[in-house]
Amino acid sequence: MNTKENIKKIIVKKPLKLDCGKTISDYPLAYETYGKLNEKKDNAILVFHALTGDQFVTGKNPITNKPGWWNYLVGPNKAINTNKFFVICANVIGGCMGSFGPSSINPENNETYGTNFPVITINDMVNAQYNLLEFFEIEKLYSVLGGSMGGMQVLQFVANFPNKTKTAIPIACTASHSAQNIAFNELGRQAIMADTKWKDGNYLKLNLSPDKGLAVARMAAHITYLSKKGLQEKFGRKLQEKDDLNFSFDADFQIESYLRYQGSIFVDRFDANSYLYITRAMDYFDLTKEYKGNLSKAFEKTKTKFFIISFTSDWLYPTSENKEILIALNSSGADVGFIEILSDKGHDSFLLDITEFLKTVKNFLEANY
Amino acid sequence: MNTKENIKKIIVKKPLKLDCGKTISDYPLAYETYGKLNEKKDNAILVFHALTGDQFVTGKNPITNKPGWWNYLVGPNKAINTNKFFVICANVIGGCMGSFGPSSINPENNETYGTNFPVITINDMVNAQYNLLEFFEIEKLYSVLGGSMGGMQVLQFVANFPNKTKTAIPIACTASHSAQNIAFNELGRQAIMADTKWKDGNYLKLNLSPDKGLAVARMAAHITYLSKKGLQEKFGRKLQEKDDLNFSFDADFQIESYLRYQGSIFVDRFDANSYLYITRAMDYFDLTKEYKGNLSKAFEKTKTKFFIISFTSDWLYPTSENKEILIALNSSGADVGFIEILSDKGHDSFLLDITEFLKTVKNFLEANY
Repeated sequence: MNTKENIKKIIVKKPLKLDCGKTISDYPLAYETYGKLNEKKDNAILVFHALTGDQFVTGKNPITNKPGWWNYLVGPNKAINTNKFFVICANVIGGCMGSFGPSSINPENNETYGTNFPVITINDMVNAQYNLLEFFEIEKLYSVLGGSMGGMQVLQFVANFPNKTKTAIPIACTASHSAQNIAFNELGRQAIMADTKWKDGNYLKLNLSPDKGLAVARMAAHITYLSKKGLQEKFGRKLQEKDDLNFSFDADFQIESYLRYQGSIFVDRFDANSYLYITRAMDYFDLTKEYKGNLSKAFEKTKTKFFIISFTSDWLYPTSENKEILIALNSSGADVGFIEILSDKGHDSFLLDITEFLKTVKNFLEANY
Repeated sequence: MNTKENIKKIIVKKPLKLDCGKTISDYPLAYETYGKLNEKKDNAILVFHALTGDQFVTGKNPITNKPGWWNYLVGPNKAINTNKFFVICANVIGGCMGSFGPSSINPENNETYGTNFPVITINDMVNAQYNLLEFFEIEKLYSVLGGSMGGMQVLQFVANFPNKTKTAIPIACTASHSAQNIAFNELGRQAIMADTKWKDGNYLKLNLSPDKGLAVARMAAHITYLSKKGLQEKFGRKLQEKDDLNFSFDADFQIESYLRYQGSIFVDRFDANSYLYITRAMDYFDLTKEYKGNLSKAFEKTKTKFFIISFTSDWLYPTSENKEILIALNSSGADVGFIEILSDKGHDSFLLDITEFLKTVKNFLEANY
């Protein structure tokens, strides 16, 4: 892994009162940009990343040396055309790619925060990232978009700053995290905390890493990102490089080695405590409750033009939950479009090369600019 | 927990060649019975339990002091009327309630087998239980039934012994374990193996117990037993005994404490290695492949009358997979009925007090006796 020292960041001086009651200031916010901000400063798009994403949206991620997580969507002449638009993406606070998070050093004792880091929310993440508009002297964004937890940030951003973006694209998300999704996140947290190397969150100062627990958490999440049908079509009961069952606990089936591999590569790039904090933020997300049960109130002051995208086989953030956002926007009188895209790839669809999805984003962004 | 010394068991002397190639003999098979075998010996019903079940189908489980797992279904004047029928249930081999399993003592070295226990299959489980027919001198059972892994045993039993039961009721099961189900089982196994107290399966002889890993495995499985809608209706975003969020990693939501509780009580009654072996057996189950891709061949010799039951919100063993069994039975010319029961309770429905389900079983059993 390459060093994180050269990661671009701003130090946010302005105090931010978090939902938990604590106030933070002078904290780092790591970001990346693609394309150029034009003279009118009206071509900026703020992309929000998902649970395990980061600011390296496209091109080569300099830390992992792998392609950016939205390589299919963002780049020259792609759906988000960086020849035309200026794309900004920040690592969320609570994250582990340079922004203020549990692996940051606490200046009070020169140790990593660990679980002394404050519990943060989607609202806190969005309020922190708002500072990037001031940094780039952008009066109004052209668009905000993101999938999964990125989509939640889109909704929260417009609710908090109703006149700060011309358009918004929430993708494969929800306005209120469901019991099943809380359950899967809790499962991941319990897997991490069950690892004896987690040490109540103090592993970094002890030079340990709860890799096994984090890998199990990732495996659990990974299953939820794929559809039953997609898994069956891709893996079915195919065996791993052999003709017959092994009669052991080695990986007999391809799906087993696939999951083990996903778990093992994840621990190289992600911090276990960040996984706890970010899943917690997702679980706490309930924009409906924030507006006392009336989600349309969240959007009643906005002139932002929305386009909502869901995927047929996404059972984590199903179309029904995306439609609740649509209904709220309609009832608040907002300008909103919606598409449910046919895909067998489950929740992961928003990260994949799905022609109809890429075309939809491109057309919406081109048509309204 | 009470002692397991008084558990009823037979010692099976006859050698059993397992699918893995090894042969076992002189092994214990623990069982329980309810009701009385009549003189004609034509009223016996063999019930097969699911992954974490045991032989204590109804009444009070003498080991856990909790009600039997099928209390709603089995008992005097219940759906399986023990005033009329003689119900037999055995703990599967590989299990931990008295039958031959990884926590059994290996006479060669006086230590528990641990992962030296042979990997077993659903076929092996069923072949072992067949010895109970000889033990009770039953020529032909009246019925075999079971849900989930119990249903797989029903299918395998009829395939292996086409003339040994008059009727059969496979419930909420499959003829071929899906990639998604293998994935969730593998997740559970990895959680157990990630626990440093698992010690490559040798924890019992070291007086250790991988409770944390086993609890995580149970939590993962438990989520899959419930439906998204059922979870939302039962728990939603309800908070645990407080008015507002805690901003910590304690259990804020009721669903979190529910899952933690399910994990914690499970480790008191179940052996981690048994969890590995039994999930492995489920993953290996592919009756379709055993009959070279033609499932109807599995049933072509049988006169057994079938009734298949599935539940609308069961996403682990969905109606579509139960219907594949129906299609195979139909195409083999078997006598078969089918019902999909409306329920929001997910896979767990087969264990619950659902009137239509209980009535269906009762009516089928009464009508054909």
